[in-house]
Amino acid sequence: MEKVFASIITIGDELLIGQVVDTNSAWIAQELNKAGIMIRNRVAVGDVRDDIWKALDEESEKAPLVLITGGLGPTADDITKSLLCDYFGGRMILHEPTLLHVQDLFERVFKRPLTERNRKQAEVPDVCTVLRNALGTAPGMLFKKGNTRFISMPGVPQEMKWIMEHQVIPQLSSWYQTGHIEHRTLLTAGIGESSLADMIKDIEEALPAHIKLAYLPNYGMVRLRLTAFGNDSQLLQKEIDHHFGLLVTAVKDYLVIDDDIPLELVVGHLLKERGKTLTTAESCTGGYIAHKLTSHAGSSAYFMGSVVSYDNSIKQRVLDVKAATLESKGAVSEETVREMIQGILQVMRTDYAVAVSGIMGPDGGSKEKPVGMVWIAVGDHSETIARQFHFRFDRMRNIELTAINALNLLRQFILQKS
Amino acid sequence: MEKVFASIITIGDELLIGQVVDTNSAWIAQELNKAGIMIRNRVAVGDVRDDIWKALDEESEKAPLVLITGGLGPTADDITKSLLCDYFGGRMILHEPTLLHVQDLFERVFKRPLTERNRKQAEVPDVCTVLRNALGTAPGMLFKKGNTRFISMPGVPQEMKWIMEHQVIPQLSSWYQTGHIEHRTLLTAGIGESSLADMIKDIEEALPAHIKLAYLPNYGMVRLRLTAFGNDSQLLQKEIDHHFGLLVTAVKDYLVIDDDIPLELVVGHLLKERGKTLTTAESCTGGYIAHKLTSHAGSSAYFMGSVVSYDNSIKQRVLDVKAATLESKGAVSEETVREMIQGILQVMRTDYAVAVSGIMGPDGGSKEKPVGMVWIAVGDHSETIARQFHFRFDRMRNIELTAINALNLLRQFILQKS
Repeated sequence: MEKVFASIITIGDELLIGQVVDTNSAWIAQELNKAGIMIRNRVAVGDVRDDIWKALDEESEKAPLVLITGGLGPTADDITKSLLCDYFGGRMILHEPTLLHVQDLFERVFKRPLTERNRKQAEVPDVCTVLRNALGTAPGMLFKKGNTRFISMPGVPQEMKWIMEHQVIPQLSSWYQTGHIEHRTLLTAGIGESSLADMIKDIEEALPAHIKLAYLPNYGMVRLRLTAFGNDSQLLQKEIDHHFGLLVTAVKDYLVIDDDIPLELVVGHLLKERGKTLTTAESCTGGYIAHKLTSHAGSSAYFMGSVVSYDNSIKQRVLDVKAATLESKGAVSEETVREMIQGILQVMRTDYAVAVSGIMGPDGGSKEKPVGMVWIAVGDHSETIARQFHFRFDRMRNIELTAINALNLLRQFILQKS
Repeated sequence: MEKVFASIITIGDELLIGQVVDTNSAWIAQELNKAGIMIRNRVAVGDVRDDIWKALDEESEKAPLVLITGGLGPTADDITKSLLCDYFGGRMILHEPTLLHVQDLFERVFKRPLTERNRKQAEVPDVCTVLRNALGTAPGMLFKKGNTRFISMPGVPQEMKWIMEHQVIPQLSSWYQTGHIEHRTLLTAGIGESSLADMIKDIEEALPAHIKLAYLPNYGMVRLRLTAFGNDSQLLQKEIDHHFGLLVTAVKDYLVIDDDIPLELVVGHLLKERGKTLTTAESCTGGYIAHKLTSHAGSSAYFMGSVVSYDNSIKQRVLDVKAATLESKGAVSEETVREMIQGILQVMRTDYAVAVSGIMGPDGGSKEKPVGMVWIAVGDHSETIARQFHFRFDRMRNIELTAINALNLLRQFILQKS
């Protein structure tokens, strides 16, 4: 068995001027990792012939598998296909099965006439193996040069994913004798990266060379990830589980979850196990906590709904927050979020509720209530607790931090109740 | 004047196993573009000494400015600082001003004792210029080798941004005599990329060599972007405005906005201009439309709040959808979203409302109502229109498509009303 590496090249000017965030690479990396292939490098280049050519040269020296996304569209700025044709010394030919597929897509799905430009999508270099793309007009293409395989795919995420899932990943084990890769991840809250490092110093130093520890701080929480590489899958799992167990025990006072799942799913699992339901009353987060909860399939088992009370009149009329409270204490106050909890429990009739009110910025701050000040309350029908937070960042980050801290407060509240 | 290029190297295993999506690069690219510097390459490498070293070699050959993020944390997996020290032939020394700053951060902000590990954050190679990082413990570092400048920054987004804004961007004009870059972007809906290309073929072919056109399809809409490069800023703006004007006229039947702003802001501006208010009643999007609207400062001028009626009991009790409607037509039906509009207008007392109900998947579909089927309604106090959609993707993408189509339907409704 060998340690197999891959490189990813993403092509497109939009990546280099910052108009688009590259989410394809992260997805590809995850999938290849599961198949025992490690990413050595990720490169983004523009729609520039020389730069793409150079990236192909450089990356194929580093890895026996080069995955390329982007630049396969029907418009003039997409130059990847003709460049690959030249790079691998082929000539363009019409690929009949692709043409039939493109015709079918236009007739049945897009319901638009097929233009000459669309027809061209069915042309491919005669030196490639065509990888069918069921969801779009640009097929994937597999090239070989020496011992290196190059796979070109469209940049549209769902088309790339379809080709990877149906055409690339199933073939990997016949192309490479890969080793195994195992990851274990845990999530902590309430402790900084360096204190954590001091706490687990001995465990970290005792790790064998083929198991690596990474610290991943994010939004005031720190993830710890162990990565092990080896040939014997069973032995590897046993080894990594042993070291992971040591870590879990060492950080137990700060442990949120010993799994790589987001906080809203941790909360969801707690609710589901207990057969309890949840609602949110959101002012400053504007529905973001509800969105986080409902972005996972199955959330309807515990999440009933929310009121986004952005305007104070909604806090009063729908959530029954007293006019006197808003007037004397303000919308961003302990009293207001406590009354929001009572109001939303009445409206939604759930077991638990979360309420948030704060100033996310950049405007709206004052000396007493600066940007980043947030009140968060969590409660049930017998008790409500409220806490004040001060975040120091931009609007989006303050919204994210508010959501995460609200979910973590709720998690602790649920655990304390049962 | 010269055409100045930069390369970006991001360091961290988390980028190569897909645990983290790299948003730093997109931000850096945007900022450098404004300063007239173009990105030639973006590379992501792991926390591996040889790979980082090689990336430094390769990228410095391609560009006179190399920006490096990540790998500067206090833990053992962060190797960038000592590697840079070796790469540039220096030795580590304690940087007194940074130590004072780190001590102050721990005392005043983190409120935790300073450990030896944290103290080490104040050590830097003696061959660098320290770039102050007001928000964190790892300072930025500037190195020079031949004609190339290397700038190393932490990977934490707000720290990187602070260093860029305060320490790097202000110096760029003294380091490089850059040309100017101008972008113009417009957004279309209801037309495919290749039909659009046929429609503007003559304009595209007549573009001068220093103005480039890009097609950016996303979620069923297509953005067109012109990028111009040149020395004379005023002339350049005149030129690009001329060609952009031709494009705007050519695509006018499909034009959403002649600006690079998201759809929810287009809708927000329409509402604000008219002094009108908006609410949403969301089932399948779970608060995502409200989140999109409120992610922009100033949205409180037109957005009042929402009801997320995830559970049918909430549709009935809070939004007054009839039990008979839910029973005979189902939650995903024209009748239900129409009643949701009436209900939410009553609750929120706004001028306009949006209501959505659908099946986002992966579960919950049936033969008559498959995954991806969505009903969207928009209305005011005198009229409601409803439309059915069928999306074909995964849960997150279906949620995004539902939100975008709801906002676009609302946009058309508002325009038709005034």
